[in-house]
Amino acid sequence: MRPLSVALAGLGTVGAGVLRLLRENADIVAARAGRPIVVTAVSARDRGRDRGISLAGLRWYEAPVALAADAETDAVVELIGGAEGPARALVEAAIAAGKPVVTANKALLAVHGAALAAAAEAQGVPLGFEAAVAGGIPVIKALREGLAGNRLSRVAGILNGTCNYILSVMAERGREFAEVLGEAQRLGYAEADPAFDIDGIDAAHKLAILAAIAFGRPVAFGDVHVEGIRHISALDIAFARELGYRIKLLGIARRVDGGAGRAGISARVHPCMVPAGSPLARVDGVYNAVVAEGDFVGRLMLEGRGAGAGPTASAVVADLIDLARNRSAPVWGAASAALSDLPSLPMSAHLGTYYLRLMVVDRAGVIADVTAVLRDLDISLESMLQRGRSPGEAVPVVLVTHETREAAIRTAIERITALDVVLETPVLIRIEPA
Amino acid sequence: MRPLSVALAGLGTVGAGVLRLLRENADIVAARAGRPIVVTAVSARDRGRDRGISLAGLRWYEAPVALAADAETDAVVELIGGAEGPARALVEAAIAAGKPVVTANKALLAVHGAALAAAAEAQGVPLGFEAAVAGGIPVIKALREGLAGNRLSRVAGILNGTCNYILSVMAERGREFAEVLGEAQRLGYAEADPAFDIDGIDAAHKLAILAAIAFGRPVAFGDVHVEGIRHISALDIAFARELGYRIKLLGIARRVDGGAGRAGISARVHPCMVPAGSPLARVDGVYNAVVAEGDFVGRLMLEGRGAGAGPTASAVVADLIDLARNRSAPVWGAASAALSDLPSLPMSAHLGTYYLRLMVVDRAGVIADVTAVLRDLDISLESMLQRGRSPGEAVPVVLVTHETREAAIRTAIERITALDVVLETPVLIRIEPA
Repeated sequence: MRPLSVALAGLGTVGAGVLRLLRENADIVAARAGRPIVVTAVSARDRGRDRGISLAGLRWYEAPVALAADAETDAVVELIGGAEGPARALVEAAIAAGKPVVTANKALLAVHGAALAAAAEAQGVPLGFEAAVAGGIPVIKALREGLAGNRLSRVAGILNGTCNYILSVMAERGREFAEVLGEAQRLGYAEADPAFDIDGIDAAHKLAILAAIAFGRPVAFGDVHVEGIRHISALDIAFARELGYRIKLLGIARRVDGGAGRAGISARVHPCMVPAGSPLARVDGVYNAVVAEGDFVGRLMLEGRGAGAGPTASAVVADLIDLARNRSAPVWGAASAALSDLPSLPMSAHLGTYYLRLMVVDRAGVIADVTAVLRDLDISLESMLQRGRSPGEAVPVVLVTHETREAAIRTAIERITALDVVLETPVLIRIEPA
Repeated sequence: MRPLSVALAGLGTVGAGVLRLLRENADIVAARAGRPIVVTAVSARDRGRDRGISLAGLRWYEAPVALAADAETDAVVELIGGAEGPARALVEAAIAAGKPVVTANKALLAVHGAALAAAAEAQGVPLGFEAAVAGGIPVIKALREGLAGNRLSRVAGILNGTCNYILSVMAERGREFAEVLGEAQRLGYAEADPAFDIDGIDAAHKLAILAAIAFGRPVAFGDVHVEGIRHISALDIAFARELGYRIKLLGIARRVDGGAGRAGISARVHPCMVPAGSPLARVDGVYNAVVAEGDFVGRLMLEGRGAGAGPTASAVVADLIDLARNRSAPVWGAASAALSDLPSLPMSAHLGTYYLRLMVVDRAGVIADVTAVLRDLDISLESMLQRGRSPGEAVPVVLVTHETREAAIRTAIERITALDVVLETPVLIRIEPA
């Protein structure tokens, strides 16, 4: 049978990994795809760079967008990255040209996915992006096809390996964020400019995509509440452990079936305290994991390598094999006319339990002042911890609330911060059942 | 669009669950399938039985096999169970009639899967069996499509919820097998005739299917080495804990890339000691989990509910949605001409480390006699434990070997059993990295 001929844009580690996989495992790929899959055209920034892999015999294009017009290829793989620029131009051009696209680009999907999905549907062109979320874990396929019969209530995951590595090392060795970040940068686990990862944006891109698939509605990245891990300290990690929790950066999307005005989808990325015995608490280092809860399937967890050339190439090639076998699904799991119109819920409506850690002056009456603020806002406490005594000096006080609204806790923090005896803005970490 | 019309055989808890899912989640199913999926014909043993679900308007057939000839249905769902009899007759008839089949029947797939796959390929008919392995976990799809670009080296899993429940309770409460089995039977977690589960046969059916998909070759149930959990005692669970292990019934299939005559596939189901910190060690109760290792993706784990009406119905309906969307894959992931011809390796060739627990008379020279047997067979010891002293009485002695061949350990057990001072047949439990 005629090979599936592929045009590949972007020859960084992932692009080189895809080339390598398609060559090293050509026999397996051909058997599973029903025909060979070969890259015949490429585009990348630097033609001369040594990528440890031969580019002989490949048609070379200077401009990525030109790949969309290459008449001899059946599909385009976009591995350039970024929500705008050449990546976006190429994917749009390929879809417009009626050419199937496979991409690992979470930013592009999160920011422009709604329009791209509409264009792909209008053109009847498959758009594969298994590699965009959780690397080698086939989570898009699992949610969109494997759990397709379920009404999902929740999807949650550890979606950024850099953050998980930093938090894991901080917890293991009792070290501070800045120090571990520096080390992660030296080891290549964090970028020179780490903001995208540690401020939660990368995880939010992935969560937006997962939420769209889990709940069958167009991606809505702008509605994701995002917080990163810069403010997490060794002190809070130690308190978390004392309370029976681990701190993880999670992305969580939930379907809330409340009364009028309350039903909708909430999506948020922030550090969470999860029970030490819960499955997500044990996912350490550069691993990713996703938990999904469906009305018939119950709770499902998938865990694996969330980044790197090998796992990402594995996901890209799985999408290519689907193309070769003519297996496809609508981008968000259903045709646009059948997508849900559930609204996004604001973070202020979030209902949960909270860890608050204050630095206060160790003197009589301080706790009474703080708890009066909470009482006035109808926030009840599950527990309080005060460690160490040093009269007149700063000491940490930890408060754990019962279930309350985010809006109330925000007001409480403003008022508590304004108290004379409170020396720093309180640290807030949400507690999740995980 | 025209609905996908389904004929359903078997209305036990799973069959009723499929009917319920297709009705309760009809909106979601139609959106994801691109058209409604409706059961219009059924066959079951007792028409009068109350299943808590209306059968009004469904065409009723006394003989399941007659569903294959129902001209108004597009696909057959087989939920009767059993490797022979009406289940086999129906699936064969449906394939012969060119009708797509979805089944949850692991015994049928394990025992007759090679012939059924050949027939399905000859007829160009899809044969779905996601529900046959690990209930609601979409492991067939994950391995066959999601990891399709990988050369897998190993697939291992907790595949039987009954055994995992029994072992979990034994470990938690320090109780004996027979007692916990009785309780599991009263609670409905174990069948009145539990042999199929506790002797490892059910897990072996599932492992045979997983191995076929992981390594792309026809299912070979007869080549699976099978041991159950009847001989596991509270004493061995306690020793395991002391050594840093948990005892789990695992199904493990490996590709061995040895030298001439050594390359092949090994597949085995038996109790294993797995390191307490490993992911599979923490999967407790009725949960199932599967770990797969691929050359590009690395290590992937999937965990979820392995049985029950809801999870199984979730898997059956996922297969129906694939049918409705015209998504399909060859039964073992590749067309028959592209399947691997790697041979099955015998258990005697297995290379691993072993836990041996003897009951010996507590007297001088016993350990010397036992270790002489091991030395003569070139089996070296990693550790030895003797707990309690009662001169002249029976005491347990635990031996943990370095890596050795199964054939050698079998000979060792024969010789050790023959020693006067050894009072019972030694207990052997294989140690796995998990």
